[in-house]
Amino acid sequence: MINHFCKKPLWECSQTLAAVAQGRQPADLVIKGAKLVNVCTAEIQEDIDIAIAEGRIAYIGSADHCIGEATEVIDAQGSYVSPAFLDGHIHVESSMMGAGEYARAVIPHGTAGIYWDPHEICNVLGLEGVKVMMEDAARTPLKAMVTTPSCVPAVPGFEDTGSFVGPAEVAESMTWDGVVGLGEMMNFVGVVNGTDHAHGELAETLKADKVITGHYSIPETDRGLNSYIASGVRCCHESTRAEDVLAKIRLGQYAQLRYGSAWHDLPVLAKAITERKVDTRFVNLISDDTHPHTLVKDGHLDHVLRVAVECGIDVIQAIQMLTINVATCFRMDNELGSITPGKCADIVFLDGLDTLNVTRTIIDGTVVAQDGKPLFDYEPFKFPEWVTHSVHLGRQITPESFAVPAPDGAKDSVKVRTIEIIPGKVGTFETHVGLPIVDGKLESDLSQDVLKTFVFERHHETGTFGVGFSKGFGIKCGAMASTVAHDAHNLLVVGTNDEDMALAANTLAECGGGMVVVAKGEVLGLVELPIAGLMNDLNAQEMSEKVHALENTWEKIGCTMPSPFMTMALIPLACLPELRLTNRGLVDCTTFQFVDLEV
Amino acid sequence: MINHFCKKPLWECSQTLAAVAQGRQPADLVIKGAKLVNVCTAEIQEDIDIAIAEGRIAYIGSADHCIGEATEVIDAQGSYVSPAFLDGHIHVESSMMGAGEYARAVIPHGTAGIYWDPHEICNVLGLEGVKVMMEDAARTPLKAMVTTPSCVPAVPGFEDTGSFVGPAEVAESMTWDGVVGLGEMMNFVGVVNGTDHAHGELAETLKADKVITGHYSIPETDRGLNSYIASGVRCCHESTRAEDVLAKIRLGQYAQLRYGSAWHDLPVLAKAITERKVDTRFVNLISDDTHPHTLVKDGHLDHVLRVAVECGIDVIQAIQMLTINVATCFRMDNELGSITPGKCADIVFLDGLDTLNVTRTIIDGTVVAQDGKPLFDYEPFKFPEWVTHSVHLGRQITPESFAVPAPDGAKDSVKVRTIEIIPGKVGTFETHVGLPIVDGKLESDLSQDVLKTFVFERHHETGTFGVGFSKGFGIKCGAMASTVAHDAHNLLVVGTNDEDMALAANTLAECGGGMVVVAKGEVLGLVELPIAGLMNDLNAQEMSEKVHALENTWEKIGCTMPSPFMTMALIPLACLPELRLTNRGLVDCTTFQFVDLEV
Repeated sequence: MINHFCKKPLWECSQTLAAVAQGRQPADLVIKGAKLVNVCTAEIQEDIDIAIAEGRIAYIGSADHCIGEATEVIDAQGSYVSPAFLDGHIHVESSMMGAGEYARAVIPHGTAGIYWDPHEICNVLGLEGVKVMMEDAARTPLKAMVTTPSCVPAVPGFEDTGSFVGPAEVAESMTWDGVVGLGEMMNFVGVVNGTDHAHGELAETLKADKVITGHYSIPETDRGLNSYIASGVRCCHESTRAEDVLAKIRLGQYAQLRYGSAWHDLPVLAKAITERKVDTRFVNLISDDTHPHTLVKDGHLDHVLRVAVECGIDVIQAIQMLTINVATCFRMDNELGSITPGKCADIVFLDGLDTLNVTRTIIDGTVVAQDGKPLFDYEPFKFPEWVTHSVHLGRQITPESFAVPAPDGAKDSVKVRTIEIIPGKVGTFETHVGLPIVDGKLESDLSQDVLKTFVFERHHETGTFGVGFSKGFGIKCGAMASTVAHDAHNLLVVGTNDEDMALAANTLAECGGGMVVVAKGEVLGLVELPIAGLMNDLNAQEMSEKVHALENTWEKIGCTMPSPFMTMALIPLACLPELRLTNRGLVDCTTFQFVDLEV
Repeated sequence: MINHFCKKPLWECSQTLAAVAQGRQPADLVIKGAKLVNVCTAEIQEDIDIAIAEGRIAYIGSADHCIGEATEVIDAQGSYVSPAFLDGHIHVESSMMGAGEYARAVIPHGTAGIYWDPHEICNVLGLEGVKVMMEDAARTPLKAMVTTPSCVPAVPGFEDTGSFVGPAEVAESMTWDGVVGLGEMMNFVGVVNGTDHAHGELAETLKADKVITGHYSIPETDRGLNSYIASGVRCCHESTRAEDVLAKIRLGQYAQLRYGSAWHDLPVLAKAITERKVDTRFVNLISDDTHPHTLVKDGHLDHVLRVAVECGIDVIQAIQMLTINVATCFRMDNELGSITPGKCADIVFLDGLDTLNVTRTIIDGTVVAQDGKPLFDYEPFKFPEWVTHSVHLGRQITPESFAVPAPDGAKDSVKVRTIEIIPGKVGTFETHVGLPIVDGKLESDLSQDVLKTFVFERHHETGTFGVGFSKGFGIKCGAMASTVAHDAHNLLVVGTNDEDMALAANTLAECGGGMVVVAKGEVLGLVELPIAGLMNDLNAQEMSEKVHALENTWEKIGCTMPSPFMTMALIPLACLPELRLTNRGLVDCTTFQFVDLEV
């Protein structure tokens, strides 16, 4: 497909590049004396100059003849230069920042391009919301290449989202310059079962000659995986075992080894290639999600690269997995992913192949970050009002809203289904607990660590809500609420008492969404996320501090698990086992049926 | 780009493939128990079944569940299966056969696809002629993917061809389904010098999102090569030294190592990868030209593969160079070049990895050749009359036509420039020879092995012709003529006396073109090539016998060099050094100037 992420298309500047290479015209920029990480031949070449014009590489060799009066010259002695990094699968919203601030956070870590699936905002605000994020991203040097969210809602029929994506919406989005493919096809059940909906979306992507990205998350590598790949899904980031990786690359699917803030699959997956001799061209390294504190503390793909090398992957091969292999996956290797003539001049400087610290990032021939700081101007993006006011409950929430009447005929106690969370994991257990009836109602029971849990539809003022109980947070008082509540991002409230739950819910309703902890009528901590109820326009450092402060308030009310909001935010995610709660009710996610609260 | 070379686009059959992989629907064909050459991971996998439906691969593993009553089952026990071969650069016309018979000749040798540059016929009959060849090819299973001839004429201003290609013609052809790129950009001088003509053609190809193929034939790998690659040329088959190959792949250009009938570069080039450890993903193996006797005696890409292995290239890497690496070069690896789900079922059976004999070829899921024989029906193509009558001299040729008056003022003898051929090489020398004046004219001089040489324009009846002398054929009597005369394919006549030269010329004019040897008023040998004066509709065996018989007649008149017609056919090729003769006159091909016969 035509690459729209460049300063100029090659056909508009090929004559200039030819002239610069020949020395008839000066380069805009020359990098002198670098150690080149050649991802084409998997070699290090010593003492290499790189001449750049029109945002593209014109010449590689000894480039004194390309230097004119106006040419900027960078001495790269002692540095390694590598193609800048490409993230083959990422959700910007996980950073809780808009795409602009996200770009400012990742570019200093060497990221030039992301293949992002904006499915969080799409669930809330549809493709119009995606467009707004794309506009924000386009104001930065980051090549923010969109894969259209394919599964909105994630589990049709079991939840209400703000929007809907089907084949027609996919077809429409494929005409946009910034769209390069289809976002993770989580509906692998629909694909292998051959539904018109899933295959209709695949078809519209294939007709547009773009790339289908995958999400095949089950440990089945035979008929199901073959079926999924035969349907045209070119890559998948959902491997959890080394054998998943091996099966995928053998079947010609790009295996995207994940090392994100939440999911650390890489060390296990790396064994697929470190414990046997295989061609690694079908392997990518990706992040999937990166939270602000990870960006501030560890970095982005540079961090993933360091982890990959620690896992025993050859450093040049690992760099290939972040550069040329990603570009080839997306069939854009004619434009991106290598430092070779004609390609976009997207380059990172590394201080060494042992340390792998990024000291400079160049995108389209411009130095856009140095020594950890972005160098490009960025005025805060003005999000439209409909983006920053996305909480539409259509009702007043009061303490009475959280009353849970005991089932008819129940006497002293009721045995209920609870969603038992597992710290640090995405799964839940369905656990049955006896709850006492108090004044004809069911209440949270701190002695059993069981909390009332509500999900209110917040997109279309339907007034619908789901009621359940969750278990395992360990809190002793207060309540929490969040509008980050995957994937429909309705308003999720968990708490010990109705007054605090109402306060938590109303606090978020008033500020346009976010994450809040309250206790005894007081707001202890609040991260406002007014952009679709998912993001803020603060920078990574500020967001990291805010999230950290909020997590401290969890501790105050008794919860000691790591990143509890992340675990809580998955309570409504009805595509994962075992028991979940959406705005339509409790869902048994092993049989995909609604179930009653009472066992 | 969208692949039009398949039974059905994937978006029309993804549901069927998913169903077959899952066992809900039977496969059309199942291959059982093969040793799979996995070009994705560079492994051999033992005892693999492959299920095929709708011409595509649906499933790989243990495929009993895909077998229904109507499923064809092939037992592959003992065989290796590999993706079928792709030739990244080939001129069908070199085979002297139409594309249909060419397909019948190469498919039994495992070739499923060719990226062909039909620039011979285009020089004669323009893009309309290309279209006719494409129609012929389309009647066979061969994926005959066209790269539009870029250099017609090869050296503008120095010869008259039947046609012309510029940016507008390239743009028009890019809308054709069968066109996947631009043919070899021989005008590397124009590219590095930035001419509008050359860059205009590159631009039209890039705008159409298709691939530019190259021809960079000088031993310069610095500024010129960088300039050429920066202009967007993705591959090049014109390496003659190992260092050329290394330079190209380091600069991200696909190096296509050639082993054709005429040019045997591979053994030298292979050292670029056998004598050092480099990633070989940017290496292809190609044939460029394959004459009928090579096809009959040695094979096509299977022969190149065997030579590559003899040269020390790892056999799996060599197979990658004929399959996935070629498909990736043309950005069609999502459709071709590997045996993986969803891809076109283009498969060869090999009897062993040591012998590498092709025993069966499958294209789009159908067995199209077995044990060296094509299995598909092919009715001889009916070429239109304007294709089979392409010799338009516009004049009667008589012995008097070959009179060469001595220059004014010359007395006993004249020192003339002669084109000295070099047996087995493409180059010539400019050699100065004194010729006696006989009756005021210059004649061939057998004592110095110098022969009169004429090139008559034969496309537009302009009546123009060039006069010169060539040296080195060794013949003692008679004359030869050919309408295969690169690249303009005018009528070339070389001989010892005017009567035989006239007979040779008129014999070809009457039969619509070809190659002829005459002596003493008698036609000793004739290969009729009525299709554009370049090809015949006979099959490879018949053509091989005819060419062999003709070569024997060369011996009869005294020439002992191998394939003398090939060497003779390059006399007019004004893009190669040193001295050449076109219909416009003698060309010094080192300075690109017309020169006089007399020194």
